[in-house]
Amino acid sequence: MAEDAPLVNLDTNALEAAQLLAERRLPALVVTDADGSPHAILPASQVVQFLVPGYVQDDPSLARVMTESMADRAGEKLGHKQVRDLLPRERRELATVNHDDTIIEVAAIMARLRCPLAAVMKDGRLIGVVTASRLLALALPKR
Amino acid sequence: MAEDAPLVNLDTNALEAAQLLAERRLPALVVTDADGSPHAILPASQVVQFLVPGYVQDDPSLARVMTESMADRAGEKLGHKQVRDLLPRERRELATVNHDDTIIEVAAIMARLRCPLAAVMKDGRLIGVVTASRLLALALPKR
Repeated sequence: MAEDAPLVNLDTNALEAAQLLAERRLPALVVTDADGSPHAILPASQVVQFLVPGYVQDDPSLARVMTESMADRAGEKLGHKQVRDLLPRERRELATVNHDDTIIEVAAIMARLRCPLAAVMKDGRLIGVVTASRLLALALPKR
Repeated sequence: MAEDAPLVNLDTNALEAAQLLAERRLPALVVTDADGSPHAILPASQVVQFLVPGYVQDDPSLARVMTESMADRAGEKLGHKQVRDLLPRERRELATVNHDDTIIEVAAIMARLRCPLAAVMKDGRLIGVVTASRLLALALPKR
């Protein structure tokens, strides 16, 4: 059931984490502690706010007059941060499932937490993730 | 900027919509009105709850003893519903952007609404979507 999960922890470079989300078109990453246990979920929709300069957050009308080249600086800005700096202040409950859970169990947890992906554990270790769309692919008949 | 958006409206068959999410590994779909204007967002994490039989929602411990074959029935159950039946009761604000908006504008809207994707409009018509991870791919330097 589990898909390969990129390994990202609190100390991972923020640009590297954002590039992983981008390359693999993931809706979110599972962030682990130093000891490898899941700590939090980092949604891509949270990371995009770091593309936005602070003064645009204060006055959204400024975004209109900015050039795309200013967005390039976002990469540089992220490169100086760690994943811990990107996490929402309000810690979101992470959906955690066991590798031998049924599809129904995983669906029930994911639906309850409205979480776009769940961390898949085996013997207390993170072995991968399963996204909501992947779960649908596993559960539903093909067209 | 826009990626091809599968066309889904309130009357679309729910199984078909779920299969689109599954096949394209999308975090969400944009649902349009009958006149083609964006109405709501349907996250995959919302759809997975329809894989869960009602009596498991009432008593999650039952999910453990169910067999995977029971999940097969979810396809049948969805086949009798329409997309309007899957939408969250609480209507979530949909991120809507213009095809010529800058990356920074799109990022600012997406971050504010914590939305995994935005509807991309041109001349008042939906022409596609952009996901948060796609936006990161456009904005950040490649590794």
